[in-house]
Amino acid sequence: MTPENLVKQINFIKEIDKIKYIQRKTKLFNSDRNENDAEHSWHLAMMALVLAEHSNASIDLLKVIKMVLIHDIVEIDAGDTFIYDTQKNHSNTDEERLAAQRIFGLLPGEQAEEMIAIWEEFEAGETNEAKFARTMDRLEPLLQNTSNNGGTWNEFGVNYEKVHEKKSIMKEGSNTIWDFAEQLINESVEKGILKKG
Amino acid sequence: MTPENLVKQINFIKEIDKIKYIQRKTKLFNSDRNENDAEHSWHLAMMALVLAEHSNASIDLLKVIKMVLIHDIVEIDAGDTFIYDTQKNHSNTDEERLAAQRIFGLLPGEQAEEMIAIWEEFEAGETNEAKFARTMDRLEPLLQNTSNNGGTWNEFGVNYEKVHEKKSIMKEGSNTIWDFAEQLINESVEKGILKKG
Repeated sequence: MTPENLVKQINFIKEIDKIKYIQRKTKLFNSDRNENDAEHSWHLAMMALVLAEHSNASIDLLKVIKMVLIHDIVEIDAGDTFIYDTQKNHSNTDEERLAAQRIFGLLPGEQAEEMIAIWEEFEAGETNEAKFARTMDRLEPLLQNTSNNGGTWNEFGVNYEKVHEKKSIMKEGSNTIWDFAEQLINESVEKGILKKG
Repeated sequence: MTPENLVKQINFIKEIDKIKYIQRKTKLFNSDRNENDAEHSWHLAMMALVLAEHSNASIDLLKVIKMVLIHDIVEIDAGDTFIYDTQKNHSNTDEERLAAQRIFGLLPGEQAEEMIAIWEEFEAGETNEAKFARTMDRLEPLLQNTSNNGGTWNEFGVNYEKVHEKKSIMKEGSNTIWDFAEQLINESVEKGILKKG
């Protein structure tokens, strides 16, 4: 007899495979192939792992990694929302909350509650762990766009002011990484791959 | 001035993007699309996260997650080796060791050493963390193949005996998960999607 917890966990493991089909707007580095949410989540986890020393505050790294690994699972039901979308607010929509209930709800009760709490903590962006995790989530597409001649900035007509505004929350997680990011943004303007105004 | 450590870490973060192009033999669940190493590594990290309670021994979960996140990075240089390949031994080839030196070597010294040590610990498979991480690495393709009407077993003519032998190391990490896996293997024989002899 397979323990009930294991049966539930295996069902969850099968369900989350669907995240590999969720396409993001951003492309891989030096590439025209869209990134999917599983690849993105893996990359953020690796970034958290190697960049943790630059966090402004002391952080529980395992919690940060849990956050970035699971942060896009709700998109299996709710779909990817582009950060510069003006019609739809990215954060914690009703659709995403229902998705969290359904998908994490496949897990045993206590584990489901833990996952939902971690996802909500990430979305709220208030704890040190959430701030650092969100810094990772803002950094990856910046690196991708600068490697892709402006990438989604040019494709969707996003200007310097919007990028600077959306990216500046990175400083809540890491002043060091934000200084580096701001420099990349300024260089992108100088190179003409990000337009002002 | 961007700190030297951060410059190195960013170079590493860009380099490991290449793992998203490394195709595995196994396909996604209920799918004919090959999985890539980034997707696979993300999935193993999620599995470790939800299945940790079934480990035979008490484990440092952060270390297990580090192991599964980085275990295939060497394949950027060395390529994917199919577990049932009879020509080439999967584990820790000279090519993989050189790849680890080059790729993890992009990181600051101490961090590079830590990553190489974690990768070697995973490959050696002797610590409790490595045993559990390898259990995850064996479980995912088993779940995929059973969802895909035998998947790589049929595609590459792999029989029950070989599958049972390769998968049985799972019991070193988790007796509970191995019991479940063995049951799946037996059911696959009954369904005719895995052949004996």
